[in-house]
Amino acid sequence: MRVLGIDPGLTRCGVGVVEGVPGRLGKLVAYQVVRSEPDEDIAHRLLHLDRTLAELVERYQPDSVAVERVFSQHNARTVMGTAQASGVAILAGARAGLPVQTYTPSEVKAAVTGSGTADKAQVTAMVTRLLRLAAPPKPADAADAIAIAICHIWRGGTRAKIEAAAARRSNR
Amino acid sequence: MRVLGIDPGLTRCGVGVVEGVPGRLGKLVAYQVVRSEPDEDIAHRLLHLDRTLAELVERYQPDSVAVERVFSQHNARTVMGTAQASGVAILAGARAGLPVQTYTPSEVKAAVTGSGTADKAQVTAMVTRLLRLAAPPKPADAADAIAIAICHIWRGGTRAKIEAAAARRSNR
Repeated sequence: MRVLGIDPGLTRCGVGVVEGVPGRLGKLVAYQVVRSEPDEDIAHRLLHLDRTLAELVERYQPDSVAVERVFSQHNARTVMGTAQASGVAILAGARAGLPVQTYTPSEVKAAVTGSGTADKAQVTAMVTRLLRLAAPPKPADAADAIAIAICHIWRGGTRAKIEAAAARRSNR
Repeated sequence: MRVLGIDPGLTRCGVGVVEGVPGRLGKLVAYQVVRSEPDEDIAHRLLHLDRTLAELVERYQPDSVAVERVFSQHNARTVMGTAQASGVAILAGARAGLPVQTYTPSEVKAAVTGSGTADKAQVTAMVTRLLRLAAPPKPADAADAIAIAICHIWRGGTRAKIEAAAARRSNR
């Protein structure tokens, strides 16, 4: 299963593509950070993000898209832009006909480090280890996006198993 | 000048199309409220909004798009969805190659009622008067979107005059 993970942001939006199956170490396919300038027009910034995400979906052909959920307790000055970027990110997956799942930051942290309150360094360290990378992903903004993709692969597996079990039960 | 005004929202997104020139009473072309259910998947809700806005832009061929700005002091439970919807609304205009402008709620209220702290009833009353409608727009959610379009026409006119004056000055 190939997942495109997105850590939404307007100035920096992390994107990570990971291939894997639940319970195994995955493989990093690609990652990048989509940038735009804070003094640019909001319409241009969102359009640039939309186009770049559409290109990445087209290039890497993921099976699904996973996006980190945005909460209002984040930095209030930037949270509206982050939420707008997350809307565009979710839409990019939906427009391509892909299933889109969102995860809270603590779900992502718990999936890769075992703790929902892990810090950025821990997440980066675990992403590096779980994907057997020679060095931590650079820029560091991409590590979160990669962690979101890993989270989706592992959680998706659990979910798929639960659904399969439920289907078997109801078929009896 | 024909303007498509958008009052962004996930459950209800108001859209109003107004034709007019600065300083004159305008003409209401169309309005509607794009709805989605709170228990629906966020990806489907944003995709539905995106498609409907694209259709409306295609059908009414506005010269520009005006979107109300979202602030974090709004209802915290719904503000993230509203911000995501605003990202999709701004993107809808940008994708169509149209200029997109955002206005604060108080700019919109001040433009149609003269007061930046006017209430919803006052805005609806003035929209009805300024566009010489036989009755207030229904559902009321659409009144704000219509007010945003009126705001853009009037403010756009001022801006265009200032820019023209500045251009004349720099050409001397």
